[in-house]
Amino acid sequence: MANLPEVTDEYCESLWSRVCNWGRWGVDDQLGALNLVTDDKRRRVAAGVRRGVAIGLGNPWPVTPAPDNPWPAEHRMMRAGDDPDYPGVQGLSVALDYLGVACHGAATSHIDALCHVFVKGRMYNDFPAADVKSTGALRNDVWPMRDGIVTRGVLLDVPRAVGLPYLGGDARISVAQLEAAEAAAGLRVESGDVLVVHIGREARIAAEGPFDPGLAGLAGLHPECVPWLHERGVAVLGADGMNDPQPNWTAPRWPLPVHYLGICGMGMTLLHNLETGRLASYCAEISQWSFLLTIAPLKARGATGSPVNPIAMF
Amino acid sequence: MANLPEVTDEYCESLWSRVCNWGRWGVDDQLGALNLVTDDKRRRVAAGVRRGVAIGLGNPWPVTPAPDNPWPAEHRMMRAGDDPDYPGVQGLSVALDYLGVACHGAATSHIDALCHVFVKGRMYNDFPAADVKSTGALRNDVWPMRDGIVTRGVLLDVPRAVGLPYLGGDARISVAQLEAAEAAAGLRVESGDVLVVHIGREARIAAEGPFDPGLAGLAGLHPECVPWLHERGVAVLGADGMNDPQPNWTAPRWPLPVHYLGICGMGMTLLHNLETGRLASYCAEISQWSFLLTIAPLKARGATGSPVNPIAMF
Amino acid sequence: MANLPEVTDEYCESLWSRVCNWGRWGVDDQLGALNLVTDDKRRRVAAGVRRGVAIGLGNPWPVTPAPDNPWPAEHRMMRAGDDPDYPGVQGLSVALDYLGVACHGAATSHIDALCHVFVKGRMYNDFPAADVKSTGALRNDVWPMRDGIVTRGVLLDVPRAVGLPYLGGDARISVAQLEAAEAAAGLRVESGDVLVVHIGREARIAAEGPFDPGLAGLAGLHPECVPWLHERGVAVLGADGMNDPQPNWTAPRWPLPVHYLGICGMGMTLLHNLETGRLASYCAEISQWSFLLTIAPLKARGATGSPVNPIAMF
Amino acid sequence: MANLPEVTDEYCESLWSRVCNWGRWGVDDQLGALNLVTDDKRRRVAAGVRRGVAIGLGNPWPVTPAPDNPWPAEHRMMRAGDDPDYPGVQGLSVALDYLGVACHGAATSHIDALCHVFVKGRMYNDFPAADVKSTGALRNDVWPMRDGIVTRGVLLDVPRAVGLPYLGGDARISVAQLEAAEAAAGLRVESGDVLVVHIGREARIAAEGPFDPGLAGLAGLHPECVPWLHERGVAVLGADGMNDPQPNWTAPRWPLPVHYLGICGMGMTLLHNLETGRLASYCAEISQWSFLLTIAPLKARGATGSPVNPIAMF
Repeated sequence: MANLPEVTDEYCESLWSRVCNWGRWGVDDQLGALNLVTDDKRRRVAAGVRRGVAIGLGNPWPVTPAPDNPWPAEHRMMRAGDDPDYPGVQGLSVALDYLGVACHGAATSHIDALCHVFVKGRMYNDFPAADVKSTGALRNDVWPMRDGIVTRGVLLDVPRAVGLPYLGGDARISVAQLEAAEAAAGLRVESGDVLVVHIGREARIAAEGPFDPGLAGLAGLHPECVPWLHERGVAVLGADGMNDPQPNWTAPRWPLPVHYLGICGMGMTLLHNLETGRLASYCAEISQWSFLLTIAPLKARGATGSPVNPIAMF
Repeated sequence: MANLPEVTDEYCESLWSRVCNWGRWGVDDQLGALNLVTDDKRRRVAAGVRRGVAIGLGNPWPVTPAPDNPWPAEHRMMRAGDDPDYPGVQGLSVALDYLGVACHGAATSHIDALCHVFVKGRMYNDFPAADVKSTGALRNDVWPMRDGIVTRGVLLDVPRAVGLPYLGGDARISVAQLEAAEAAAGLRVESGDVLVVHIGREARIAAEGPFDPGLAGLAGLHPECVPWLHERGVAVLGADGMNDPQPNWTAPRWPLPVHYLGICGMGMTLLHNLETGRLASYCAEISQWSFLLTIAPLKARGATGSPVNPIAMF
Repeated sequence: MANLPEVTDEYCESLWSRVCNWGRWGVDDQLGALNLVTDDKRRRVAAGVRRGVAIGLGNPWPVTPAPDNPWPAEHRMMRAGDDPDYPGVQGLSVALDYLGVACHGAATSHIDALCHVFVKGRMYNDFPAADVKSTGALRNDVWPMRDGIVTRGVLLDVPRAVGLPYLGGDARISVAQLEAAEAAAGLRVESGDVLVVHIGREARIAAEGPFDPGLAGLAGLHPECVPWLHERGVAVLGADGMNDPQPNWTAPRWPLPVHYLGICGMGMTLLHNLETGRLASYCAEISQWSFLLTIAPLKARGATGSPVNPIAMF
Repeated sequence: MANLPEVTDEYCESLWSRVCNWGRWGVDDQLGALNLVTDDKRRRVAAGVRRGVAIGLGNPWPVTPAPDNPWPAEHRMMRAGDDPDYPGVQGLSVALDYLGVACHGAATSHIDALCHVFVKGRMYNDFPAADVKSTGALRNDVWPMRDGIVTRGVLLDVPRAVGLPYLGGDARISVAQLEAAEAAAGLRVESGDVLVVHIGREARIAAEGPFDPGLAGLAGLHPECVPWLHERGVAVLGADGMNDPQPNWTAPRWPLPVHYLGICGMGMTLLHNLETGRLASYCAEISQWSFLLTIAPLKARGATGSPVNPIAMF
């Protein structure tokens, strides 16, 4: 980290102009970097499937309060096997339940919509924050993702590349580390890829116990990585962490530069809190770090994000 | 319909022994007919992708009360663009929200877990209903689907096969109609497929307005189809309706034979309330009714089902 | 109804100046007509309790969808007697559950906060609508009611006064009818009272079955009553209906004049969907239509209303 | 505390027979100690109101995660002042929201129903735990409290009696301390009273900051107090804490003896997490520690408890 630039407002501002995609795909665009995922890309990635092995990257629905889960997801039974007969419907014997979640935060596997963050009162593509109403977002919600995100996924296993079981709370990932992981994987991150950066959060929890990312820290990308992501044409960035490291940077206006530069500037949305442990093991086992990835947000008009269980297929 | 068998308890009982898969994949099995989806199947289906076109089959998150939506799904903003600055976190400007749903019923696109229905107090594979606790299902929940369902999807467009814009509320689909649609599609439903039966619900709503399926009826499969599904090795059955027709059959113990025979007997789960209109149009346009289908249930341990947005890729 | 004024925008505007209390209790006031409830009033009403009989006016928590309940309240068990042992806590055997509600509408017994309605973009006492944020109301929420509303309650039984078992859907209550009920009750509505107007909704449902107030109508006060309420100094107005009749008036800017004139103009809030049947019977039985009333809103800062179960004591 | 009996299973069992009210009010009774609140009691208490001052004892709706609030209550706006015009209803300009809570635990002011705890698989009055279904409690829910609890409230200010600003986390209140507080108040706790024991939790939080009761402890009644409560005929016991001290006692089958002996044995339910600071100050100011108390649970059939804002009137 000693060699990485200091993260100040000025530094982040200087990156903005290098990554901003506003207007690139038209003034009305709400897809952002998903424009880089083409039919041809999807077709070629599907053609590369060799094994037929599928792995879900969603983490277990986080119903238990924890230092990193202050607003637990909800799973509540409405009718269980102790009382299965539905009143008034002859012969109907069923179990019913309810699922609910405020997906943002450090616990639930979710995808951000492009309306999730604002920079100077604007969203991606210069739409005003005021377009996100108390009744739902009028623009940049998850709706433009309603046909799913299907493209190549690439796992960059940073702990493996740097020879650690997992990244510590103070790790700030550099471009050099991304490229080291890329080299170790024998591939190159390309236009339209979903890049998943493995930090080893599950291994860290197994070793250190549950922790509050704001206090104990959480590895994430140094903002110097965002121009690199832009150059490579990354469509979506994901991690088993929160992509931005924790705690927030102290730059007064740029607490979360990967969110602000990525989501708001590039229109490159984020996947958070993925379960990448089994994925990383499997990639290492077969020496292959790319796969067909399918992300299927719920089709909720106006939503700022969606819980997801992305499916990797090899 | 005149030629279809009368649906009585005795008739349904007689079908049970022809379709029951209890014990077929071991006494502890909780995957049921998903066992028919093999790595080889997945690999071959991926290899068949030619166009790279993806279509989401989830319907819009149904937040609006309607005759077929007595328990609307929830989307509630928690922080919108009118007040984006997060208290106590310098520079953090965000939008946040909440999504929740009791997914069963006639409104939300969802997948049933195998614990959703009971026949004579038992679930699929002879597990007792009592294993579904008030705190969540101990068995046959959505958890065994945590790596997604990725396999061949087949759309059988019944209205098209019978020359109608959509099926009326009293339509009860027969084996002959499934086979007619199959013939029209130039394919054969095979082991490990997800079979999606299009009834044209969106077209019906567009023509007739919103309706209560319990009063106005809803097309679905006559139970004679279940042995056919069993013979073909269907892994999951789906529809833009509820698979079973509405209103329920009057057989006192078999109000929903496709649910009871399919989910409970075969271990073949169901996808309900899909949005198949665009899919059907696209299939007809390219004269291809099969595709790579990815279903990604939320990884909620103990859940009786999950909202989903299945992604078809051609 | 033939003699009642036509309800137009102009008519409602003309009433506004007769009832508006903006500034009456200071520019910062958020209590509105609750200022009329004095310690002395409370003391005198308590002193008038003779029988020690308490009756709850909340209606049953409306969890069942119905024509007048499109967004049912929620009651979901989280741990029942089938699985009472709390994990990880030795010997702890409990039942737990969840209650939730969007209280506004025609189903739940609730009290409106003064921020519930806007006239020309303003709330009671000239606060801007924009003070009601997506994160909660900054003013005129239920918080100012946090010490409860304790005062005299008066039941005016209009069906009894007009000789009907209940008021039909097209009934629009006049000042003359209120005064007839007042005379029948042998009392006078006075400053600081909570006035509860009984329309006989439960009797109507019992006789006619469930109905949609927007279609079948619901009795309520004609706006001519609002100046009368103002003159009498009513602190809170309640009903077993919605106070304003249904369907809404067709005056383009005044669909709900009692809400608009009462809540927004007078700062006199409303209690809706009370269960007044038992209360009305008891009042008739003892020939007494006044009582000590205690309303205890949940102390939710920022809330636009609260479910309540007001308690009448005789 | 040195003189208080050790809390073992045997000790708690020995108290059971001294306090058990099963059958006392009939085999079908679901009111428990509320039977001690008579019309005459209510009448006399109302007659004692002298000042007309009302104080709400509910604490602020606890939406913020905290060490003592792992499942925060919910307040979510559904329509705020940024978008007040209701779609499809001309002229309707409103704010709407949602309130929800799982009321048990250490954060929300709530009342327990008599079905909340089980001893050896039974509830109060020998009803089986199995009567609490996944769909709601069939017995001993909050429904029997639907007309509210209106009676004399008595505040025993233990910190004041022992000369401390608040009780520390290791304080276990004895009968002697209750009687000292009683003597200081110049009254005697009597049949049908709601006894509120003030421990000074707000003052402790103000002095020490937020804490986790399970780790830092929370003052509560030693089980020796329960027979005393029984002798005095207390109808409901309340506190600004959880009545039972925290952490739980280590007796394997009696982690919460006040709950088990009180709710299950006596049918004397509990009020938790009240805001008693203002109340205690006011009582001291006027040298009066009794008042008319009105508790108004939501009328939710099947519920194990209800959030409440009890109203004290002097």
